[in-house]
This record gives sequence, C-alpha cells and structure tokens, in this order.
Amino acid sequence: MQLIGGALTQLTNSFSLEHIDKQHLSYDIVICVNRFLNCLHPSHPTSHSNYAHTKMADTQIRFGILGCAEIARKVSRAISLAPNAALYAIGSRSLEKATKFAASNGFPESAKIYGSYDAVLDDPNVDAVYVPLPTSLHIKWAVLAAEKKKHILLEKPVALNVGEFDKILEACESNGVQLMDSTMWMHNPRTAKMREFLSDPDKFGELRSMHVVFTFAADPDFLENDIRVKPDLDALGALGDAGWYCIRAILWANNFHLPKTVTAFPGSIFNKAGVIISCGAALQWEDGKTATFHCSFLANLTMSVTASGTKGSLHLDDFVIPFQEKEGSYSTSTEAGFTELVTGWVPLPSQHTVMTDHPQEACMVTEFSRLVKSVKSGGSVAEKKWPTLSRLTQLVLDAVKISVEKGGECVSVS
Amino acid sequence: MQLIGGALTQLTNSFSLEHIDKQHLSYDIVICVNRFLNCLHPSHPTSHSNYAHTKMADTQIRFGILGCAEIARKVSRAISLAPNAALYAIGSRSLEKATKFAASNGFPESAKIYGSYDAVLDDPNVDAVYVPLPTSLHIKWAVLAAEKKKHILLEKPVALNVGEFDKILEACESNGVQLMDSTMWMHNPRTAKMREFLSDPDKFGELRSMHVVFTFAADPDFLENDIRVKPDLDALGALGDAGWYCIRAILWANNFHLPKTVTAFPGSIFNKAGVIISCGAALQWEDGKTATFHCSFLANLTMSVTASGTKGSLHLDDFVIPFQEKEGSYSTSTEAGFTELVTGWVPLPSQHTVMTDHPQEACMVTEFSRLVKSVKSGGSVAEKKWPTLSRLTQLVLDAVKISVEKGGECVSVS
Repeated sequence: MQLIGGALTQLTNSFSLEHIDKQHLSYDIVICVNRFLNCLHPSHPTSHSNYAHTKMADTQIRFGILGCAEIARKVSRAISLAPNAALYAIGSRSLEKATKFAASNGFPESAKIYGSYDAVLDDPNVDAVYVPLPTSLHIKWAVLAAEKKKHILLEKPVALNVGEFDKILEACESNGVQLMDSTMWMHNPRTAKMREFLSDPDKFGELRSMHVVFTFAADPDFLENDIRVKPDLDALGALGDAGWYCIRAILWANNFHLPKTVTAFPGSIFNKAGVIISCGAALQWEDGKTATFHCSFLANLTMSVTASGTKGSLHLDDFVIPFQEKEGSYSTSTEAGFTELVTGWVPLPSQHTVMTDHPQEACMVTEFSRLVKSVKSGGSVAEKKWPTLSRLTQLVLDAVKISVEKGGECVSVS
Repeated sequence: MQLIGGALTQLTNSFSLEHIDKQHLSYDIVICVNRFLNCLHPSHPTSHSNYAHTKMADTQIRFGILGCAEIARKVSRAISLAPNAALYAIGSRSLEKATKFAASNGFPESAKIYGSYDAVLDDPNVDAVYVPLPTSLHIKWAVLAAEKKKHILLEKPVALNVGEFDKILEACESNGVQLMDSTMWMHNPRTAKMREFLSDPDKFGELRSMHVVFTFAADPDFLENDIRVKPDLDALGALGDAGWYCIRAILWANNFHLPKTVTAFPGSIFNKAGVIISCGAALQWEDGKTATFHCSFLANLTMSVTASGTKGSLHLDDFVIPFQEKEGSYSTSTEAGFTELVTGWVPLPSQHTVMTDHPQEACMVTEFSRLVKSVKSGGSVAEKKWPTLSRLTQLVLDAVKISVEKGGECVSVS
C-alpha cells in the first residue's frame, strides 16, 4: 500500500506516466495505475513499450470468458493488464460460480455475468472470447463462437486432433474471425530475443539437435480427478498439456519446418483410463536434424530447452513459465572450445536477461487484441500466422500420439 | 611470479602449509609449492582436503605414460598435481617425440624417456601406466601392462566392446593390478555433491527421466584425420568419445542399475568409413524410468544433464569438463510449484557451487594412486568398483551401437 501510495503521489505530482518507474511496481499496481491514468488522461498511452495502445473503452477489445477454469484467472488478469483489452463478460453453467469468479478476478462492476456459454456468445458487445474449456469441447464452442462472429483466444491443445482443428479453422475463416492459441511463452519478449539468437548464422548457425522437457509432479488428486487425466475431457493427457509446449518449442526453433518422422520412446505411461501421463519422442528432419522431448505428470517441475547448432548453443530452464514474471533469462554460447589443456571453457557461456513491461500472458492478450482490432476496424482480414502455428503443433502432436499408441513405431508427419 | 613470491615468503615465515591460501593460487603454482614443501617438510601432508597423502618419493606412485596423445598433456599435469603420484617415464614409438613431450609437460629431469611402449612396461620402477592409446590398441597394451604387473589408468572408451574389455579385466585380475578408466568428471567433488542430492529421498526422490547431451563442433581437419573418426583406431566414433560420458552419467544417476532396453533414435550420422559421428538413444528401465542422450561431433560444444525425480530436478551444463577448473556449479529444485496465478515459480531453483582443491583429473589420479598404493603395500587387493563401472558403461554402449547399426531396433541390455 505504501508502494501504491508512493506511485500515486508521484503520479499526482507529475501527471505523466513516463515518470513512474513501472519496473518496480507489481503488475497489479500497474493495473490500478492504468485505471487511474485513464481517468486523468483518457488519451494517454499507457505503455511506453511496443504496446502503444490506449486504454480507452472505445479502443479496447471486450472479452467474454467461457467457463471458470483455473487458468482463466491468470488470463483475466492478463486482460486487465493489456492496454487494448477489457474484461467484459463471464459465462459459466453456474451463475453463482460466474458471479464469484468475476468478483475475485478483477472484473469491473459493469461486467456481464451469464449462466451459460451461449449467453456470452449472444452478447453483441463481446468482441472476443477466451476459451479455456476441456479440449473435447473446443470443437463445439470454438465453431459456435466463430459463427457468432466472436474472435477466439483458444486454450491449448487446440483440439483432440488436427481434423477437429481444421473444422474450427474453417469456421473462423468463413466468419472472418481471428484465432490464436494460448501458448503464452511465444509472446514473452525473451522468446523474440532467443529467436534472434537462433537465427544468427554466426552466433548459432544451423540447428542440429535439441531436447525439451516439461514435467510436473501432479498430486494424487490431480492424477485422479483433473480434466487432464480424463478420456472424455482432455483425452491427450500429458502429451496435450505439457507435450504441446515441447512440440511447439521444437517447431519454433526449427522455423516451423515439420519433421519427416516422429518416433515415440519406449515406456510411455498411461493411466487406467488409457490417458497418457508420461511419454517422449524423437523427431527427425530430412536434413539430419534431430529433436527429442519428454513430458510427464510424474516428475518434479522441469521446463528445459537445450538446443545445439553448428556454431552455438541455447539453454533455459523455465521456457513455459519464467521463474519470475518480470524477467526471463537464458544462456547462450558461441563457438565454445576449451583452454589449452582442456581444463575449462573458452569462451564461457553468456547469461542474458530480458525484462518485460507486461507478463507474457498480457503480451499475448495485447497481440491478439491488436489483430482483432485490425479486423474489427475493417483494416485487414484475420492474421493466418497464429492459427497456422497451432495447426502445425497439433499435426506433430497427433503423429506422436499415434507413435505412442503403436509402441514406438516410426510415424510420418504430413 | 609475484604470486609465487608472496606464497613462498608466507611459507618461509610460517613453515606451515595450512597458512597458504591455495584456493587463490593457480594449480601450476600449487605444483611448485608442493615440491618446495617436500624439501622443507618431507613428511608434511600436502593437502588439507581428502587427500591426506604425502608428496614424498617413497610414497608416490610412479607413472609411465604410453604415447604422447594430446590428452596425456592434461593427465601429466594431473599427475604432477596429485600429492601421491609422480611423473616417472614416458614412452613413444618416437624417442624424439617422447623427449619433447617430457620437456614440455613438467617431467622431472630424472624422468625416463623411452622409444617404445614396451620399454615403459619393462621398467621395474614404473608402478602404473596411463594408457591414452587409440581404443583399438587398448586390448593389446592393457593386457601386456597387466602381465608386467603395472596398474592401469585407461582412457575411455575402455575397449571396442565388452568382450575385449573382459579380456583386459581378466588380465588385471589374474595379475592383481588396479584398473580405472579415465572418466575424470566422476572424481570432481561436485559429482559427489550432486550424487548426495540425487540420493536424497526428500530433495530428489526417485529418478523418473533424464537427458544428457555431449556435442562438440569438430573442425574439418578433425573430421578427416582425428583418430576418433578412423575405423581402425577409435572405431566407436562419437558414441565412444562423447557418448561414453552421456551413458556414464545416465548410469551414475541410476546407481548403475542397467536399463532393460536401449533404442537408438532415427537419424544417426556416419562418416564415409562408417564411423558414427552423431547419434542418440532412449534407455528404458523395468520400473518405467527413461533416459535419453545425444552425442555428436557436429554441433557446438554442449554438455548438459537434466534429471527429473519425483520430488526434485538437477541441471548442469558442463558435466564433463567444468566451465572453470577450480569450481563446479549445478542447479537443483525440490517440489517446485507456481505462484498462485501460475505466473512464476515457488520455490526458485537453487544454484550450488563446489570448489575443488585439485582439478578433477588430479582428483582422479589421486584416487587411482591411493588404490594402487594399497595394493602395492600389500594392504588390499585391487578395488573392483571402478572396473565394474567401466564394464557397465561399455555394456550399454555396445547395445546402443547395435541399435544404431540396426536403424533403431530396440535392443536388450544384458
């Protein structure tokens, strides 16, 4: 509270956002400051970074959220933080649940609280919906949302398989709505910096091999009851949840060139209902590149990427969710060798830290809202890049699932 | 020189080793100080760490080195640094080469310079030999050395296959000589600390998955001419060189329990002569544990270990050769989770740094010499632990090689 007080005093004195050191404020205080600024200077840009949009009602994309999933709490906050987005409506099969959710997740008093998902889609003031429903429900609700001309921020995995996803894509395209999946780390400024490194022919060269791991130790309740272990809800299990990120990271590092084949490792683990709770695979490219990944609900939280190119290497241990939300680090090395007697490294790897004005999920919402705004204002058609990346990820995921089910058979990706 | 002067002044004043802060001296100065101390206090222990041996001629193990391999330079320095070992002889097929090697690698003036390996083995004063010869020559020279009652520090891979290694083992056992392979990182004090962590049921739990990578970007000359790409010399190529370390790390983390099967990844790369220059494999245990590794001569220097247990994770990026020889770092996390809104980690991983009085290769020589001393003094028979670890590593390596050659067939390890 002292910090808020200090910030507001500073603000009152200067009436200028630039003079506030937002880096030292928590993001939640930034939300308050943003709202306060909007009262003082309705046309003042609320961000001095890439997001030079104004936090004004008429330029904000109005979000409706379908369901009260746990992850929707994080995304609600992200919508509050994004300068060009606003929390507008929440729908749940239980009106009581929706009311509680809105009250505890920063929805404004004017927000619409609905007792069904349909009601959100029927609200003409909703520009876009965030869909954190179980994967098996994506096809129904994403297609319906598109038909109601709502732009869609869709949780991952985007569908149970690429066939389903193609139906969602078709609905989005024929209704002219923007689609983006909710792979938040793609929007972290760190990711762009790492991509720069991977694209540098002198610092990294050509990717040769890569390993990605995303595991977390689910508790007994999760392993029994979470939607991610239920064949009728998130039937892709650990592969759809943690594996999605691994596959995305591998494709991202490969400039989204598809591998030729995928081969699941022996030893995949399924629960009693047949849902994958641990697996891994090797991906193979025409040019000899290889990548491997492992995903599981059965081991301590681990989120590592190790990529080796002909000239450089990249490593980080928190690729999906940075250790701390205001900054992201990674290490690189280029043309690493040894001291004369091979007793140490020359040069030593470099550590890099990228600060972020907004947490990565707010960057995602901001980018999505920017695209939606372009479509809404008639300036452009929906951007195809993001749905294409979703589709490629789902395509590889499908191939891995087949290989897992066939006990490690080598499966072509096409 | 100022540093040496300072150390020697300090030494002259105190006549006590404990008062010298060896941590701040380079290891090469430590060698000088050790020699100086031996003159002043022949019975003074030269180390205040685990290596409470005396650096006196009568208690030092006298080493002969077979050949002038590049790696022998590093091990010569290690022998000089080890308090219980001494450089005694060097043999090469070229007397001139041996003379030059001795002169430029800290051999004392009294050292024996021989124009053949046989001459080293025939010298009755040689206690132990270090064998850095090409792998295809190991069986001949290790067996001969054992028959001449020389204890053996053998470069890795220990043999072309476990059948050959068993003949070396047999010769060592029937002649009562100590055998140890030259996997240096096993002897780094950091390794013991990491082992402690992996063995902690509360901090790490049970190992579930692991990935190890060791690649380096060999230059065109290496890829054309190095013994590690020649089928008649180091026929195991990248698998024998870099892969050996990966397999050892995986076994080490698994308390040397053998996997049930190994399955090479698709996409192994061979040179024109059929030698492996890039490959990887998945290892599978009965209890569902999995481990993967990748080794290659075709990507920037990368040496990473990522291990995930039920309760903790371990990561390091320099497992074979620490970034800096005086210290080794690694990171761990235990029961890692997220902040309330899943926007950061709680707790954050911990960084650990282990200082080392001696570089890891000197720790290795010291341990080997300690074991040799025990045998030599009649106090004990040769220690079986180290040759057993060599054999297990070779056994898995052999299975991986078969799987690579069979294009990724699942191969049983027995």
